Amino acid sequence: MRICVLGAGAWGSALARLLNQGGQSVTLWGHDPKLLEEIRRSGRNDRFLPGIEVPQTISLEGVLEQAVKDTECVVVAVPSKAFREVTSRLASFGGLIVSVTKGIEHNSGLTMCGVLGQTAPQASRAALSGPSFAIEVARGVPTAIVAASLDSATAVKVQALFNRPAFRVYASTDLLGVELGGALKNVIAIAAGIGDGLGFGDNSKAALVTRAISEMRRLGVACGAQAETFTGLSGLGDLIVTCFSRHSRNRGFGERLGKGEEPAAVAASTEAIAEGYPTAKSAYQLARSRGVVTPVIDETYAMLYEKKDLRKAVRDLMTRDLKTED
Amino acid sequence: MRICVLGAGAWGSALARLLNQGGQSVTLWGHDPKLLEEIRRSGRNDRFLPGIEVPQTISLEGVLEQAVKDTECVVVAVPSKAFREVTSRLASFGGLIVSVTKGIEHNSGLTMCGVLGQTAPQASRAALSGPSFAIEVARGVPTAIVAASLDSATAVKVQALFNRPAFRVYASTDLLGVELGGALKNVIAIAAGIGDGLGFGDNSKAALVTRAISEMRRLGVACGAQAETFTGLSGLGDLIVTCFSRHSRNRGFGERLGKGEEPAAVAASTEAIAEGYPTAKSAYQLARSRGVVTPVIDETYAMLYEKKDLRKAVRDLMTRDLKTED
Repeated sequence: MRICVLGAGAWGSALARLLNQGGQSVTLWGHDPKLLEEIRRSGRNDRFLPGIEVPQTISLEGVLEQAVKDTECVVVAVPSKAFREVTSRLASFGGLIVSVTKGIEHNSGLTMCGVLGQTAPQASRAALSGPSFAIEVARGVPTAIVAASLDSATAVKVQALFNRPAFRVYASTDLLGVELGGALKNVIAIAAGIGDGLGFGDNSKAALVTRAISEMRRLGVACGAQAETFTGLSGLGDLIVTCFSRHSRNRGFGERLGKGEEPAAVAASTEAIAEGYPTAKSAYQLARSRGVVTPVIDETYAMLYEKKDLRKAVRDLMTRDLKTED
Repeated sequence: MRICVLGAGAWGSALARLLNQGGQSVTLWGHDPKLLEEIRRSGRNDRFLPGIEVPQTISLEGVLEQAVKDTECVVVAVPSKAFREVTSRLASFGGLIVSVTKGIEHNSGLTMCGVLGQTAPQASRAALSGPSFAIEVARGVPTAIVAASLDSATAVKVQALFNRPAFRVYASTDLLGVELGGALKNVIAIAAGIGDGLGFGDNSKAALVTRAISEMRRLGVACGAQAETFTGLSGLGDLIVTCFSRHSRNRGFGERLGKGEEPAAVAASTEAIAEGYPTAKSAYQLARSRGVVTPVIDETYAMLYEKKDLRKAVRDLMTRDLKTED
């Protein structure tokens, strides 16, 4: 199948490699001509995926309209803030679009496939999400992930497209639940990272994550997702690895805040985006609009956007009086 | 209240300190006179809880009958393999016994409070369990944990006894669920550690842990526990921290196996016990007796007790064909 991957960051590059290894004909589009030139010259994407070969059989393309021409499937791996703009250029595309971007749009509260419903209404839509650090996927570390679409035939098609011996893809029709799990866990990971930076320990983080999974589920269910999805790979699985792994950008982002840096400064200092930073705002808006109690999201929002004292926020979370464990 | 803590390991010592700080009159019993002498001399339990003061207001006692004399509450913090023998000496005790030992007895399949029902039938019984590394509790790191008893008044009493500003205790009446969560997670942590030792990454571990929580819940429910308990602090919370933290003895035990050491040799080389090693056998027996499908427990049992090749076992787990994510 002819497939175009939009976005030449870590995840776009790792998935382009994976699809290429699976025998697909892959074009990788990036908006930065300099990055494409670097990849072309070195045979690697050292800026985002250090040390990993990008095979020459992957076409590199800087013009989006050229990249998606005659393609049957588009994989969107751009940052959430660029998602609407980039996918608006797929308005007449009638094939399959797979979003691998994790985020919630500000104000609209839409997940990425929600945005696609507006920007590319003629396409079939699916999301791929789960615990999957790009660098580990690129190194062939066994990984399990979920392909979701409202249409089960589409979910199964995406599953077959990406499934590899060391990359196990499960299918789900709870598209919203899978997307919300992937987006919300990044917010929680920032809170977990802040705790790390402040020197709070693993006991605290375990309590935070346990509370957070209930909170994600409550918010998801209020939005129409299925409760079970949040205890699966794309919910709990992705949450725990993002909160505990040294690979996690969002946890690392939080850790730098915990050590005294300012959110905007940390965001400006790295090429790779910590999606939890913008998503904290969307999640906070979403919870308010649905009337859901979300202490972890609220405190994270307050730390990121209202200059709330970090130590006070984390302590408030840990000592908040709750009648039940939930 | 007069309280006696049985077991001068890391957890017994940390809880004795906590209760002492809470204003209780605490006696700490240990079976090893040399260890008690070390603590008495140095004012610390450097063998199990390095660098942490053991206040002189905690009485140290080597004779169990003397230690529990006139006490209203006994906290049992001995290894699971010594639990029946030690608590048999409380046969006529009519006060409150709180088990903080995590394990399942071989052959009988009983949790520690199940054993207490036979050895100390006149006592009120409760368990305290959750994500709580002793060293972090000793350092005052915020921690949240669960006090469980079949009798809700007893659970609330234990909650009040242990609750401190940085040690938040929730109450539950699902005693079996709380105990099984605490015991089974140690088995999973050994599997997670083996993956670490073999060089499998965080993506794999996230998939393993996600699958394991379903498995723990299935087995627990088959034994009569409540499903929700396994997504709370004493289930999921304790599981994730045990699988990801560098503090975890059970994860560390698995990591050494993954790097090539033999189970019995690793067990013999450390003073602190990795409870997951004996519990893997009990959990395997329990799952067979209840007819529950438990792939993670089965593979861990096979690695520990049947010399199954570790790499093959972990790969079998990761690539096992399952119809649904569960």
